Amino acid sequence: MTVLILTSEEDVTADMVVVHLNASGVPVLRLDPADLPGGVALSGEFVHGAFRGHLQSAGRLVSISGLRSVWVRRPGQAAARAAEPSAWLSEESSQALFGMLRGCDARWMNHPDAAHQARHKPWQLRHAQRCGLPVPATLITTFPQAAREFADRFPDLVVKPVSGAHPQDPPRAVPTSRVAPGTDFSAVAFGPTLLQRRVGKKADIRLTAVGDELLAARKEIDEDADPDDPGTVDVRFASSDIPWRPAEVPPRIAEAVRRYLRDAELAYGAFDFAEDADGTWWFLECNQSGQFGFVEVETGQPIARTVAQWLARPGPTEGTHVNGANRTVC
Amino acid sequence: MTVLILTSEEDVTADMVVVHLNASGVPVLRLDPADLPGGVALSGEFVHGAFRGHLQSAGRLVSISGLRSVWVRRPGQAAARAAEPSAWLSEESSQALFGMLRGCDARWMNHPDAAHQARHKPWQLRHAQRCGLPVPATLITTFPQAAREFADRFPDLVVKPVSGAHPQDPPRAVPTSRVAPGTDFSAVAFGPTLLQRRVGKKADIRLTAVGDELLAARKEIDEDADPDDPGTVDVRFASSDIPWRPAEVPPRIAEAVRRYLRDAELAYGAFDFAEDADGTWWFLECNQSGQFGFVEVETGQPIARTVAQWLARPGPTEGTHVNGANRTVC
Repeated sequence: MTVLILTSEEDVTADMVVVHLNASGVPVLRLDPADLPGGVALSGEFVHGAFRGHLQSAGRLVSISGLRSVWVRRPGQAAARAAEPSAWLSEESSQALFGMLRGCDARWMNHPDAAHQARHKPWQLRHAQRCGLPVPATLITTFPQAAREFADRFPDLVVKPVSGAHPQDPPRAVPTSRVAPGTDFSAVAFGPTLLQRRVGKKADIRLTAVGDELLAARKEIDEDADPDDPGTVDVRFASSDIPWRPAEVPPRIAEAVRRYLRDAELAYGAFDFAEDADGTWWFLECNQSGQFGFVEVETGQPIARTVAQWLARPGPTEGTHVNGANRTVC
Repeated sequence: MTVLILTSEEDVTADMVVVHLNASGVPVLRLDPADLPGGVALSGEFVHGAFRGHLQSAGRLVSISGLRSVWVRRPGQAAARAAEPSAWLSEESSQALFGMLRGCDARWMNHPDAAHQARHKPWQLRHAQRCGLPVPATLITTFPQAAREFADRFPDLVVKPVSGAHPQDPPRAVPTSRVAPGTDFSAVAFGPTLLQRRVGKKADIRLTAVGDELLAARKEIDEDADPDDPGTVDVRFASSDIPWRPAEVPPRIAEAVRRYLRDAELAYGAFDFAEDADGTWWFLECNQSGQFGFVEVETGQPIARTVAQWLARPGPTEGTHVNGANRTVC
């Protein structure tokens, strides 16, 4: 049974996982949908109620029914490197590849539908609340008056994008910023705005969840740092020399995080928390495709090996997205 | 409890349903995401584990928790009619609106994830097979040799797109066409190609499924028609005067169609079948957002009323997509 990895050619994170899969003798097919058609070929036959499908890349031919798991890491757009690329060819190629894979019985990290849902910030906040994670008071609004009233109740606020990275080429991370006192909120009417109570942070927490395995890391805030410094507000822009260190996960957080993944049908999630002076971990977001290389390098935690072990497991697992035909609704 | 309809301003099909909802006194909020921000406003507050959300359009303010159902009919792109439209504003507005709606407890016709999955033709064919529907022998391939061997086994073939409509502006339906004997299949390597055994049709069948209600219509093939005529091969291009007439659904087909919808978490689907000389209904495709106005007009079947009744039902229903937090995986 083969592990299928969908990612671009240059992907050091995928390389780290492939090393572990190779070491344990698990067959791997790695390909980029950008090479379909061309370096990647596919064929699927539906005859007399049966299905036989194959994928070919770099001279290797693998049966769709022989896939044990699919890792959607960082795939390029289908047909992007075709001889004559077009929107139509990308659509045809994407539907052919993912349509076929959606019908297979492999376990997904993560299933495209689960991934798509999990990217929505308002859904994340509501889902985290329902799973029992503390969420800082948040408002998403196009009503200036609602923003003003919220700022009266929670005077120390940050503003951040609703959707994540700006879709320029290459995409740009939009930093979380503090809201100055007396800000005029009338422009809120021109675009949905996310305002959130600023957590007085003692540390940033990155919790990487791989199936049921939770690996947390903690990066303390430099006590001498300016609280308005962009790197203090948003850890992605931090310049401090304080390293990420392994951290224990509080049992209530562990339970809530496992429920978050299970109910969202996710096999992988990178959770960001802000730890306050009382030691409470406040949920900020969960990135279903978040990087883990930088944490593994600084903490020595075996994240790549844990991902490889999850991908290598033989059968479907409870709590992960398999495919529509196997799901039920309660 | 309100029915939310997401669609463009000019949508006669939605108008037909709204008439029935109005007649039965069910509150309706109809809006187009293209008008957010602008004519449409939203606000959602996540405080102390609770969520309060609102949508406003045409002067009406509705609570998100007061929605009984959401009909994703034919919505425009979020922020398309904003004062200063941009890809970034569309992304922010779409995530704000759909992210908030994804967290609500309303029933969906159809949930965006279920709809997205259901658009994949290879997945449709495999799913139909698994549900027990007869599917004509089909090949989707980029291997010319596989296409040649398939044509040897099934000499009478049609070719159709894998993905549906061509994404030009406005989108263009790509007709299903017969494959001439002796066709050279070497170009298959340049794009995934869908080849399907041609069914010797006596009639086209359109089965509109609304929850558990099945309304089928049948349009006989004109016996004098040229079998190579595009309108004979693809009913969407038919010019014959033979009308659609109501038809009985064979019990095995009814059972399989209900399973198709239930396992795919769809509340609505427009199924196309080809009826052969033996009376067998061959599954061609299921369009999860297929039109029904033309069938209702010709057959007099109460499809709009059935859709209105489904939307108006008070609680969540088994077999339809609600939201991630309520789903389980078996």
